[in-house]
Amino acid sequence: MAKVNENYQKLPGSYLFSEIARRTAEYTEKNPEAKMIKMGIGDVTRPLAPAVIEAMHAAVDDMSKEETFKGYGPEQGYDFLRNAIAENDFRAHGVQIDDDEIFVSDGAKSDTGNIGDILSVDNKVAVCDPVYPVYVDTNAMAGRAGDYDEETQGWTNIHYMPTTAENGFSPAIPDEKVDVIYLCSPNNPTGTVLNNEQLKAWVDYANANDAIIMFDAAYERFISEPNVPHSIYEIEGAKTCAIEFRSFSKTAGFTGARCGYTVVPKSLVRDGQSLHDMWNRRQTTKFNGASYIIERGAAAIYTEEGKKQIEETLDYYRNNAKVIKDGLESAGLEVYGAVNSPYVWCKTPNGMGSWEFFGLLLEKANVITTPGAGFGPSGEGYIRLTAFGNAADTVEGVERIKKLIATL
Amino acid sequence: MAKVNENYQKLPGSYLFSEIARRTAEYTEKNPEAKMIKMGIGDVTRPLAPAVIEAMHAAVDDMSKEETFKGYGPEQGYDFLRNAIAENDFRAHGVQIDDDEIFVSDGAKSDTGNIGDILSVDNKVAVCDPVYPVYVDTNAMAGRAGDYDEETQGWTNIHYMPTTAENGFSPAIPDEKVDVIYLCSPNNPTGTVLNNEQLKAWVDYANANDAIIMFDAAYERFISEPNVPHSIYEIEGAKTCAIEFRSFSKTAGFTGARCGYTVVPKSLVRDGQSLHDMWNRRQTTKFNGASYIIERGAAAIYTEEGKKQIEETLDYYRNNAKVIKDGLESAGLEVYGAVNSPYVWCKTPNGMGSWEFFGLLLEKANVITTPGAGFGPSGEGYIRLTAFGNAADTVEGVERIKKLIATL
Repeated sequence: MAKVNENYQKLPGSYLFSEIARRTAEYTEKNPEAKMIKMGIGDVTRPLAPAVIEAMHAAVDDMSKEETFKGYGPEQGYDFLRNAIAENDFRAHGVQIDDDEIFVSDGAKSDTGNIGDILSVDNKVAVCDPVYPVYVDTNAMAGRAGDYDEETQGWTNIHYMPTTAENGFSPAIPDEKVDVIYLCSPNNPTGTVLNNEQLKAWVDYANANDAIIMFDAAYERFISEPNVPHSIYEIEGAKTCAIEFRSFSKTAGFTGARCGYTVVPKSLVRDGQSLHDMWNRRQTTKFNGASYIIERGAAAIYTEEGKKQIEETLDYYRNNAKVIKDGLESAGLEVYGAVNSPYVWCKTPNGMGSWEFFGLLLEKANVITTPGAGFGPSGEGYIRLTAFGNAADTVEGVERIKKLIATL
Repeated sequence: MAKVNENYQKLPGSYLFSEIARRTAEYTEKNPEAKMIKMGIGDVTRPLAPAVIEAMHAAVDDMSKEETFKGYGPEQGYDFLRNAIAENDFRAHGVQIDDDEIFVSDGAKSDTGNIGDILSVDNKVAVCDPVYPVYVDTNAMAGRAGDYDEETQGWTNIHYMPTTAENGFSPAIPDEKVDVIYLCSPNNPTGTVLNNEQLKAWVDYANANDAIIMFDAAYERFISEPNVPHSIYEIEGAKTCAIEFRSFSKTAGFTGARCGYTVVPKSLVRDGQSLHDMWNRRQTTKFNGASYIIERGAAAIYTEEGKKQIEETLDYYRNNAKVIKDGLESAGLEVYGAVNSPYVWCKTPNGMGSWEFFGLLLEKANVITTPGAGFGPSGEGYIRLTAFGNAADTVEGVERIKKLIATL
């Protein structure tokens, strides 16, 4: 009799975005004339850069001719892309990463989800609260999370690290031993960052305790301040304790095209095993490489014109973030993130619950946001707004929120 | 202290294709003037169909304009593709599969590798011998295989089913209870098929024992004979016991473009759990959808012109398979496969070992093949040749083999 993975049954429903969609649909059905503005979703809206489009067309043409046709590519990614990544994203910034420490994939969600394959079930996992749900759910599926506790809204075997205004959005080093630590900086959902000193403390903890840091740097391009590391490998000692996840999704609009990469340093060894070799074995066995066409497109962001073009798009989003932050602050709201991130994390006014404030913005301003409580208990009392929308809509959305706040 | 997945240490090296590459390189270095013909590799060589190219260009253009840009798509695949698949690959042939039973992915290797995520470690797995290594290695990584035994060249907890000329390449129903059965028809590497009656026996076994059949139909388009099912769902009862894997790789030359799909029927329930819902949860949590551009390309093979064009390419490969089979048979060799498959499975002459015959063909005919022993102990005494090469090279390669055999 075939037996299923019983950990799946423990997973609570993933209701956040479907509940948002349901409440929004309910409102718009009753108010079909309302012009809704979406400021909740973490998906890009600007087209791919012309250099990327050109490279993809050329790659499609390669596939149309016998002489240039590409069959199976390397599971780890083509050399042209691994080299461009290592050179531009790391070595050009003084961070020594070898080409073959880069593993190209169909995206960071797959990689952050699949990385657990190479780890024992028997590891204590630590995550920030609030948190990107993939870290938690994939560990729960693998049996590392224990049981879900409705009361605490958390898993019995996960170490949660509250990350709130009270601790300056810098999670405390655990008072118990943890083995695998997920850190996301710039953070989703809070939009806040860990600076050099804060990240150094984590690297030191991980090396001292033979722990592994899973460092998600998907929003790295939004960092504007000094003293904020773009890569964890800027921190001394990180190459013996950290895996870094990167994505072309927010960097270059690849959410629908699909491409990302993971850095596994060759010096990262646990249990006497090279995690680089293990991840290589995992990827060569359970993955067949990212699409040639998409890899060519990704490589184009490292050309001179590609670099300029993606910066223009990033500036568009950065400006949206500033518009949201400035607008909400001028309305007297307490606002975090935005400076180094496309995410704006806004404290609800008058001690309102996050779903209550979400509902108010939906109905009275026709602006759709994301309630912070959906990302974990410590997200209660906040909402998340994103800078990925149309610029004019963003300006209008902020104006509507300002007007509404003035009436409270 | 972080602990790694200890099952990875049990994996023997995957030496087959690297050993072939090493021996070939050694020979060609000593004989730089030799014109080598590759007949070993399971990768396509013909360009993508014009309809696919056109659809991909159009999709790239969609990504270049704000109005048509696509961000995150559905993790299960776009409706346009799920519908085209369900309609053309199943319902048009009288097999009732719903659109939402289709899960589009970046390829069948990922899916056959990842499907184990939804199963308990505590399942007895059965595979054919010889076998496509991904089925075995991914179960070994998950801890289902026991230990690797150098002597038997197999895993202690895997049930191996010899699939050889002696049993007509139809594996025997196990005499012990097994829970998860991998079947590949048309088979890689043997090129042979299971007919309706043979497959019905497996479906009956699985339903009677609450087992699950993992049915790999990646080579389905090469079936030319009647009474050979293209889908396991042609067999009564399969929708309560089988998951089917399909790929655009060999169907339409997508080995480098990357697209495949998996069918998980809603009526497949084990341990009281819907495997459809579990796979949906797995894919939405650990995968972010196939690329929009590639999905558009895949959908184009279901247009009138796309259908015609991919058939032309398939005919090209089918003809190669016939050339190989006819040629080797005329040389007096014992040949299997080819009729319903791009693979030709050839018995070595004079009781030669498969690595020995491989070496002979390499050095005396300058033809590169794959030794059957690389696919498992029961592959000893065979070599695999593939029909995916250039037609003229295939003709020449076969002529060289014929001449060589005449001298033995």
